[in-house]
Amino acid sequence: MPQNQQIVLDNRPIGEATVANFKLVTTATPELADGQVLVRHHYLSLDPYMRGRMNDGKSYAQPQPLGEVMIGGTAGEVVESRHPKFAVGDTVVGMGGWQEYSVVDGNAVGMLRKVSTTHVPLSHYLGAVGMPGVTAWYGLVKIIAPKAGETVVVSAATGAVGSAFGALAKARGCRVVGIAGGPDKCAYAVNELGFDACVDYKEHADAIGLSKALKVACPNGIDGHFENVGGMVLDAVMLRTNAFARIAVCGMIAGYNGAPLPMANPALILVNRMKIEGFIVSEHMEVWPEALTELGTLVATGQLRPRESVALGLAAAPEAFIGLLKGKNFGKQLVKLV
Amino acid sequence: MPQNQQIVLDNRPIGEATVANFKLVTTATPELADGQVLVRHHYLSLDPYMRGRMNDGKSYAQPQPLGEVMIGGTAGEVVESRHPKFAVGDTVVGMGGWQEYSVVDGNAVGMLRKVSTTHVPLSHYLGAVGMPGVTAWYGLVKIIAPKAGETVVVSAATGAVGSAFGALAKARGCRVVGIAGGPDKCAYAVNELGFDACVDYKEHADAIGLSKALKVACPNGIDGHFENVGGMVLDAVMLRTNAFARIAVCGMIAGYNGAPLPMANPALILVNRMKIEGFIVSEHMEVWPEALTELGTLVATGQLRPRESVALGLAAAPEAFIGLLKGKNFGKQLVKLV
Repeated sequence: MPQNQQIVLDNRPIGEATVANFKLVTTATPELADGQVLVRHHYLSLDPYMRGRMNDGKSYAQPQPLGEVMIGGTAGEVVESRHPKFAVGDTVVGMGGWQEYSVVDGNAVGMLRKVSTTHVPLSHYLGAVGMPGVTAWYGLVKIIAPKAGETVVVSAATGAVGSAFGALAKARGCRVVGIAGGPDKCAYAVNELGFDACVDYKEHADAIGLSKALKVACPNGIDGHFENVGGMVLDAVMLRTNAFARIAVCGMIAGYNGAPLPMANPALILVNRMKIEGFIVSEHMEVWPEALTELGTLVATGQLRPRESVALGLAAAPEAFIGLLKGKNFGKQLVKLV
Repeated sequence: MPQNQQIVLDNRPIGEATVANFKLVTTATPELADGQVLVRHHYLSLDPYMRGRMNDGKSYAQPQPLGEVMIGGTAGEVVESRHPKFAVGDTVVGMGGWQEYSVVDGNAVGMLRKVSTTHVPLSHYLGAVGMPGVTAWYGLVKIIAPKAGETVVVSAATGAVGSAFGALAKARGCRVVGIAGGPDKCAYAVNELGFDACVDYKEHADAIGLSKALKVACPNGIDGHFENVGGMVLDAVMLRTNAFARIAVCGMIAGYNGAPLPMANPALILVNRMKIEGFIVSEHMEVWPEALTELGTLVATGQLRPRESVALGLAAAPEAFIGLLKGKNFGKQLVKLV
């Protein structure tokens, strides 16, 4: 039995999350029972939603239990199988968590999915052709539902969700404007990801300043917005919305640490007859096949070339995760284990 | 030609609206051209949306021009007609404004509608069987779309919109909870309007206190909410929403005077996967026939017995309107002119 390094949640954050909230432990992988599969993880996905799970309070998901392996998406290969559907060497994605190996019930629906690495690199199944990509697809297609020629905006534009959103919206004939932190990310959004414009929120001290920059980038106003951040960014976008604008709310990263994060001017919801809708993509499994097909095609044809930030080794995961929460990553944050 | 008393907007409010913003003038009614109809108004409708029109700023509608007759719904009778579709004595509803008579183009679509007073009193066509009733219908049916057994809440529960909302929601098998100001209105909501419970917001200093009262009134949480007020009431309701709650935003009366009116905790939109949607009913004329049919039936059969506050004479309109903005009315606010 191989040794299995794991990272467990050791204690809950008070305010900001820190590396001291996590603990690295080593266990043996258990012997497989009939129907089980042993997966060696090549990549671990780090995502903002994990910060929410670290809290004990009410949210849309159960809190991460203390002392258990942190939840997380993984991509890897089957190294041992007692299930007829999976063979040694199959490349698979699942929710293996922050550890080197996981034991998966091969019969459990949706727990382990075989993927082809012929046209799509394995790591992208944790990003553009995985949960983040489907998240972008759902918000754009099912909530914003843009018409060609409309202007749509996305915050955290160079992240895994934002970059997929950009490609999906361009494919629908939209003007796509990103919001990102710093000149490097903004240049990358325009030059590599195909955004029509990108606004650097770090250049602006408040929502009024940011909204003036958005006015320049969105001369016809904003028809749809995908919100990954909340706070000042959302306030600024709302000031530029057109009548009947739609806002898909996917993240409120600035609020996870418990600081109050009010919306400055909710009266705009009425003035502009807006729709604001929150969602979590795991509650809409019915769209995954259609979304993954489109996203896989965009990657395979080079229309979506997502960037990755890769930390090396399981022990680097906590620090990479804290960096993700602070926006230090550039593109999809992964931990490479093999 | 009869003399025509009119109330015009004389100057725009700075902060709160006052009676000094209005001016009473007297003119002659003009001679009719071919195709025109002269309507004598029996009732003038006073509605919160008029406060928004008094401002010069950006809103969903053009500002009310200074020196012109205030906009407003009217119910009356045809006293002179040069249009074949309208005869002297016809009872009609329209948008005649704050004046005793109006001249209407009989060919203009939707400007003048003949109504029957056999089963529905004329004044109710400005309330339950008019724009406020259709407003309640649209928010409930098209945005909240409740299932039987769900809990729905409405603020300003005893007003024209709120009372219609209550009857429409009860007809769909919902638990209906009102929010209103003062024990008299709350007792009236439960005893006369058929609400299952009504919470007095004046008993609570903040959203936390109000949300505790809502927890008692809504033991299964809140699935749908119709917002006429905004501010503390909306904050309190959001704290009690269930997953996938829908909020129809019809009014933000507390914000009209320009005071900032933030939403305390927009992260709940994500946590509870809520949908919040603003609307104005005049943009959805396609639903009016279906909505008015249902509302007329509810009134004719006594399932909806709306209350009215009636001011007498056109000169009383400004003071009655200011009272409406402060919640002094009890039920639909009208001005009786004949």
